[in-house]
Amino acid sequence: MASSNNDHDQVKSAGLFERLWGKIVKFGLMLKKLGQDDPRRIVHSLKVALAVTLVSMLFYFEPLYDGFGLAAMWAILTVVIVFEFTVGATIGRGLNRMMATLVAAALGIGAHRLATLSGKQGEPILIALFVFVEAGIVTFFRFIPQMKARYDFGLLVFNLTFCLISVSGYRDDEVIRMGFERTNTIIIGSCTAVAVCVFIRPVWIGVELHNQIATNMEKLANFLEGFGDEYFSVSENSQNRDKSSSLQGYKSVLTSKSSEDTMANLARWEPGHGRFRFRHPWKQYLKVGTLTRQCAFKIEALNNYLTSETQTPQDVKSIIQGPSVVISSECGKALKELATSMRKMTKSPSKDPHIAKSKDAAEELKTVIRSSLCKHQDDSLDIIKDGAVALLLFEIITCTEKISEAAHKLASQAHFKDVKPRVTPVQENSGNDGPHHVITIEG
Amino acid sequence: MASSNNDHDQVKSAGLFERLWGKIVKFGLMLKKLGQDDPRRIVHSLKVALAVTLVSMLFYFEPLYDGFGLAAMWAILTVVIVFEFTVGATIGRGLNRMMATLVAAALGIGAHRLATLSGKQGEPILIALFVFVEAGIVTFFRFIPQMKARYDFGLLVFNLTFCLISVSGYRDDEVIRMGFERTNTIIIGSCTAVAVCVFIRPVWIGVELHNQIATNMEKLANFLEGFGDEYFSVSENSQNRDKSSSLQGYKSVLTSKSSEDTMANLARWEPGHGRFRFRHPWKQYLKVGTLTRQCAFKIEALNNYLTSETQTPQDVKSIIQGPSVVISSECGKALKELATSMRKMTKSPSKDPHIAKSKDAAEELKTVIRSSLCKHQDDSLDIIKDGAVALLLFEIITCTEKISEAAHKLASQAHFKDVKPRVTPVQENSGNDGPHHVITIEG
Repeated sequence: MASSNNDHDQVKSAGLFERLWGKIVKFGLMLKKLGQDDPRRIVHSLKVALAVTLVSMLFYFEPLYDGFGLAAMWAILTVVIVFEFTVGATIGRGLNRMMATLVAAALGIGAHRLATLSGKQGEPILIALFVFVEAGIVTFFRFIPQMKARYDFGLLVFNLTFCLISVSGYRDDEVIRMGFERTNTIIIGSCTAVAVCVFIRPVWIGVELHNQIATNMEKLANFLEGFGDEYFSVSENSQNRDKSSSLQGYKSVLTSKSSEDTMANLARWEPGHGRFRFRHPWKQYLKVGTLTRQCAFKIEALNNYLTSETQTPQDVKSIIQGPSVVISSECGKALKELATSMRKMTKSPSKDPHIAKSKDAAEELKTVIRSSLCKHQDDSLDIIKDGAVALLLFEIITCTEKISEAAHKLASQAHFKDVKPRVTPVQENSGNDGPHHVITIEG
Repeated sequence: MASSNNDHDQVKSAGLFERLWGKIVKFGLMLKKLGQDDPRRIVHSLKVALAVTLVSMLFYFEPLYDGFGLAAMWAILTVVIVFEFTVGATIGRGLNRMMATLVAAALGIGAHRLATLSGKQGEPILIALFVFVEAGIVTFFRFIPQMKARYDFGLLVFNLTFCLISVSGYRDDEVIRMGFERTNTIIIGSCTAVAVCVFIRPVWIGVELHNQIATNMEKLANFLEGFGDEYFSVSENSQNRDKSSSLQGYKSVLTSKSSEDTMANLARWEPGHGRFRFRHPWKQYLKVGTLTRQCAFKIEALNNYLTSETQTPQDVKSIIQGPSVVISSECGKALKELATSMRKMTKSPSKDPHIAKSKDAAEELKTVIRSSLCKHQDDSLDIIKDGAVALLLFEIITCTEKISEAAHKLASQAHFKDVKPRVTPVQENSGNDGPHHVITIEG
């Protein structure tokens, strides 16, 4: 009995060890996947490590340390706090921290001076009053939406520095030296963070936003290109839900608003880089994003009919099949081309042939509905469902057209490149500028 | 000419002054509105000011200051950084900061000790190596989604403290005292912030989430209750867009996902309070929220028909009017009652009479569609539009039912109160417990 108990314990502890080991392996695999999914994460971690190590040199080298002393720790603190994944976020935090520290340190020193005028008795009371009033006002300012969007961190740092300087001044008479030290070390820390972030494999949040908007269009395009085949080939009792799962990528577009807003806010901090200028039209990106999301709402409604358990009979579906497939796939192609030219930062031709084709198909579909849909002998409810799919497709054309207009406006505001079609020089025209006619489409 | 120029300048400067004054007035009014919209903002600002002033006492009183010295500044820093609007956010940050500082300080001291073993030459190299490795690993950990959701701030503080302690140790031999000071002052700061946040007019983020979910249901209910009248009374060329603007409140529900996720994450930090226990089923709130949002997507589609410029002729609309109005308003009532009982934290009766009524109306509507819709002599396209509205109403019934089920599950998981209907004592039954039958519905 005792031996069996012992065995049992051994098995138990072996099981415990194995489970623990399993968890560690799982954690390791998860970390590996995180790194593989986006190797820039590893680069970012190394960049932060580098920046912190650089700044900690202030402690190791005698001449540097003599200048700052223990205040050098503010530089380390600043690097850790300011360094973010993207350039926009890092510059935003860095500028906020530097400006806020500068202004708050000056005001803090002023408050300290003012308080000392009132003698040793009144000084702590006056300082406490200043701190109370300043903290209350600045905290309230953080509720102002425009402030919150861009200067929230700055207000926090302002609050912090003002309190720190004015209160420490009561004990440390060298309050001005302290204000300077804090400001200088914070500037060193912020600049180190920003420099490492910008000059070593930078991740521009503007580019991220640019790509996300294009990716979202592609997600819608994938659904629309696949919808026709899926919907009209689905028989009444097939496992259509599984089959259509490859089309469900558009779902993430439904809830992308807040991430796009944040990105646009941070992108405004970024200097010009590559073909993104300083005043790139980020607001127009948000407009394209909003229209894309509205289109995603229509697709969500369309997807309902695709994944519904009670499918319309095939013979009712077939009434609208021809033009519907054309509309869906042409809108998909239009969106895909818009996304492609956005990625390449080129202007796409303003007259989109795909939208024109889908409009023609829509006219055809309207005729079909008027002429034959209601005359069919099937269940009226099925006919209505069929018609509802058609109506949604009409709406998707409108949406696609709106997206296309907004994307064109964006292309011109952002000075995307013109793409001239490849023209082979024709003999008759080759008088003056013949050879120049050979223009290849730039990638 | 000169005089006219002078006049012009005067007018200009007066204009400048007036414009400046106008801006100041506008800013003041905006601040006033911010305070009036949510007076808790003013209370919060005063609370932060109070907490900072309390902690700054560490500097003013001799005995307190003798214990901490300038390290007391960490307490001020901590209060400003930790104090957030809601209890959940404040406790989350406070715990993160305290735990991370404790662990990182211990490890930092250990790293310093280990480095000193290698002599004065090797020490800075070893410390730099430790800092590099630690910063890299911890920064990478911040990418783990589960970590990011709850412990992001803790990882930041860990990074900060470890670097600070191990690096400063190179210059300041009293590294252990420094570690203790930092830990102690940060604990004082965190506890002050949490105490002021919890004990003076606390804002519980759990309650905020609870109310937002109920408000969102009410927004949908408002649309549905108003839809019937609006849609069927809108004639083809009235300014229907303006009229329906009062129904557009549901739009905010479409994009509420990220704010709900954040709130649920922070609510898990909150201790039990009032009728919210520590392990309140926050995840179930998110489920109700998701279903509400899905219903909002249907309503968005319905709203399209309401605000469309090309309205279906009145005589086509009138075919489906009767049952449609019933479905819409009964679903609206069902949602409104769910929202009300959620606000009161009571269990609503599991058999919802409004959903039953709307289902009956749906059967009626199906019969109408089958029997007469397609036999109408109007434009088939209008008939299809009419039918599409009916289909959306059917989907809204399904959605409402799902929301109702999820809300009931929430009510039982969260131990909402039972509401027994008011029963007047009947003579025949009044033997043993007659008087107890008089139960009033608790508010």
